[in-house]
Amino acid sequence: MSLSNKQLKFINSLQLKKYRQQHRAFLVEGAKNVLELLAGPLPIEVVCCTPAFALQHEAALRGHEVYEMGEEQLSRLGTLENNNAALAVAQMPEQTELRPPFNNYIIALDRVRDPGNLGTIIRIADWYGINQIICSHQTAELYNPKVIGASMGSYLRAQVWYDDLEKLLPRLGLPVYAAVLEGENLHQLQFEPNAGVLLVGNESEGISPALIEMASHRVTIPGFGQAESLNVAIATAVICDNLRRQQPR
Amino acid sequence: MSLSNKQLKFINSLQLKKYRQQHRAFLVEGAKNVLELLAGPLPIEVVCCTPAFALQHEAALRGHEVYEMGEEQLSRLGTLENNNAALAVAQMPEQTELRPPFNNYIIALDRVRDPGNLGTIIRIADWYGINQIICSHQTAELYNPKVIGASMGSYLRAQVWYDDLEKLLPRLGLPVYAAVLEGENLHQLQFEPNAGVLLVGNESEGISPALIEMASHRVTIPGFGQAESLNVAIATAVICDNLRRQQPR
Repeated sequence: MSLSNKQLKFINSLQLKKYRQQHRAFLVEGAKNVLELLAGPLPIEVVCCTPAFALQHEAALRGHEVYEMGEEQLSRLGTLENNNAALAVAQMPEQTELRPPFNNYIIALDRVRDPGNLGTIIRIADWYGINQIICSHQTAELYNPKVIGASMGSYLRAQVWYDDLEKLLPRLGLPVYAAVLEGENLHQLQFEPNAGVLLVGNESEGISPALIEMASHRVTIPGFGQAESLNVAIATAVICDNLRRQQPR
Repeated sequence: MSLSNKQLKFINSLQLKKYRQQHRAFLVEGAKNVLELLAGPLPIEVVCCTPAFALQHEAALRGHEVYEMGEEQLSRLGTLENNNAALAVAQMPEQTELRPPFNNYIIALDRVRDPGNLGTIIRIADWYGINQIICSHQTAELYNPKVIGASMGSYLRAQVWYDDLEKLLPRLGLPVYAAVLEGENLHQLQFEPNAGVLLVGNESEGISPALIEMASHRVTIPGFGQAESLNVAIATAVICDNLRRQQPR
């Protein structure tokens, strides 16, 4: 059975945020990502894959609407330059509410615009056992295929909200650790127990001055050489690592 | 004065490794990178830039062969999709020798193929005061424009060698810390003082078994969630951070 023109058009349209929002659906691409999706809790609308993938993963695909096709058609359908395995359309989960009691750290992102960085940060958060992420409205969109791709399946375990951080952060009532270039030495910092917010900012501008103003702690990763800064995903990982050394959960 | 056809062809050719090696020259692109190059020690063959860049950085450009052109021509000349500032051709420095006495840690990369990862690792190394990096022959090439771009100027302070790690590592006589998924807990590790090698591996396969065999320590970044792994540049940063906490230099 092959895809109808209407289905083709639908799948293609999901490359754009506008249609993802309209249909509450998004693309998951590549063998590893599709397999993680199949093993997870999200409703799946359709899977397109090569005959080889279909054969190899027959059990995982059972019960799903599956269309087999060649690599070329598969690659045309999605955003990967070469997709030699599979692509799926998943439904976005219902948005939950972010509310107390908070018993873990939360990551907050101020205008992290690069989808690769957002995806990588979601993967890092998952590694360090943090699954709540709040993003300013100008942060990359969670369901951008590049975010989904870079997160390596970790988006399935993350709750991500978009909000006005200036209004939201004070309402949480949590200590806020803002990553800046001239703050307290991260290696000497005592994180408050249980819960808090790790705040990182835009790739070139960092955290906005108004948000830095609200932070309870300004934290700096000590540098020992001459590089001017670290990439925002790298900085997030180093801060999470320092947090977990103190609070291993 | 405008570029001759021969110059155009020469600059264009540097997008390919073959010609970079042949001419011992490479491209540096974008305002920030070109400014760092101008401030550094490498001989510069030519600078191409917009009239605005030329005006704003007149002092830095003095004494150099400079060609002014529009953004479109500039973008066509190099590898950036949009270059709105400058591009330069720099000469590769002479290769120095890697030899004892070693009084600092060294980073070793086994088949880190992604140029963005190599560039990011060079930037991380610079942040943490490590400036010697040894790469397996299958690691991305230092002078790939994506490596230069991602390193954010840190390549100017790095010494990078390509060698057969299986032969080289034993000859160094240093402790080797190999990043693996099931090793000693990094948070509990005591790094040996003064010098050693931090070894990380390929994006999907990690470090080759033969090299892991040679390592004096197998080290794991403790995970607290469900992500299967961390990106190689992220892992390098976290390991460097743990090293410097003990040995701040």
